[in-house]
Amino acid sequence: MDYPSLYLEKVINEFAKLPGVGRKTALRYAFYLLKEEKEYAHALSSSILQLKEEIKLCKHCFSISDTEECNVCKDEKRDHSLVCVVENIREIMAIENTNQYRGIYHVLGGVISPIDGISPKDIRINELLQRIEKEDIKEIILALPTTMNGDTTCFYINKLLKDKNVQVSILARGVAIGDNIEYVDEITLGRSITNRLPFEKIYSN
Amino acid sequence: MDYPSLYLEKVINEFAKLPGVGRKTALRYAFYLLKEEKEYAHALSSSILQLKEEIKLCKHCFSISDTEECNVCKDEKRDHSLVCVVENIREIMAIENTNQYRGIYHVLGGVISPIDGISPKDIRINELLQRIEKEDIKEIILALPTTMNGDTTCFYINKLLKDKNVQVSILARGVAIGDNIEYVDEITLGRSITNRLPFEKIYSN
Repeated sequence: MDYPSLYLEKVINEFAKLPGVGRKTALRYAFYLLKEEKEYAHALSSSILQLKEEIKLCKHCFSISDTEECNVCKDEKRDHSLVCVVENIREIMAIENTNQYRGIYHVLGGVISPIDGISPKDIRINELLQRIEKEDIKEIILALPTTMNGDTTCFYINKLLKDKNVQVSILARGVAIGDNIEYVDEITLGRSITNRLPFEKIYSN
Repeated sequence: MDYPSLYLEKVINEFAKLPGVGRKTALRYAFYLLKEEKEYAHALSSSILQLKEEIKLCKHCFSISDTEECNVCKDEKRDHSLVCVVENIREIMAIENTNQYRGIYHVLGGVISPIDGISPKDIRINELLQRIEKEDIKEIILALPTTMNGDTTCFYINKLLKDKNVQVSILARGVAIGDNIEYVDEITLGRSITNRLPFEKIYSN
């Protein structure tokens, strides 16, 4: 497609690099920018720069933060002996939104994936071991994706922590709330029967 | 939703103002920015600013342009006696992509819409009349949306140009290429029968 302006073409090229954005959507964004007041373009532009320039990784858990120490690690009311190990910051945000978790986190920054050439030393497993040495951690909850790579990473970490005095747990597997039983995949359904719970336990929260 | 960083929250707020972008998509864009090299954030940020700061409206046709005069108006090979009247720059881009049109344009910047309070003086109808006075224009093609507001605008312009020595045409209405006849709406189908063409004409291009 020919564009009437090089500036328009440039902004479309940049927008189209965003995930899920094609040239048509990028054009739509560009027209919106043209239509809106100058202030919006300035606000969007500077917020993009600030995100990249100002954001830090928490020195303890490697979550993103505006300060050296993230809000979760800073919070003395939280249980610092309970560490939830996640792949990314997204999972922290999802777990925080449940309002059910009062421990702290550790962000691996990925999972072991031989196909993509990601080995244990490429993700923050060493940093996790160091934290277990230094801090008074009693339990690790592995909240990694339930994929082959996620499972591999869980097994690897579990093996490493065998001799340490740390309890290793994983998230409960089972039927999701709102699931129609007939559509639940057989592995999940099988596990949810094997790991069935006393009735009172489900409704205790 | 709580965000671990104010900078993250700010960029999500700004992205979420773009058309069709919700907070989930905005979060996805933000994570993509965090993952990518710094250069990308800089390129995106500056292209947004430049779009707003540098882009001009062509002094003749009001299309967007990098210079005072747009590439179409500048082109002496084009037929300057034939002017296609469009609502927005989007339509110019669509028509240019057909490679079928060799005339020039006039961007109204909207159509008459009593409900939205857009009257003839709010769109560039006066500018069109001035062009007709000054330039040697023989034909006007109205390429406005086939909506009630678009039709109102067409009638209004046609009435204004009655006494001028200018031919007024509209885009042909009919069955679109690839349309299944049974699914074509009755008005379009009716018009395409009334305005039927000699067989040779359809295949002449």
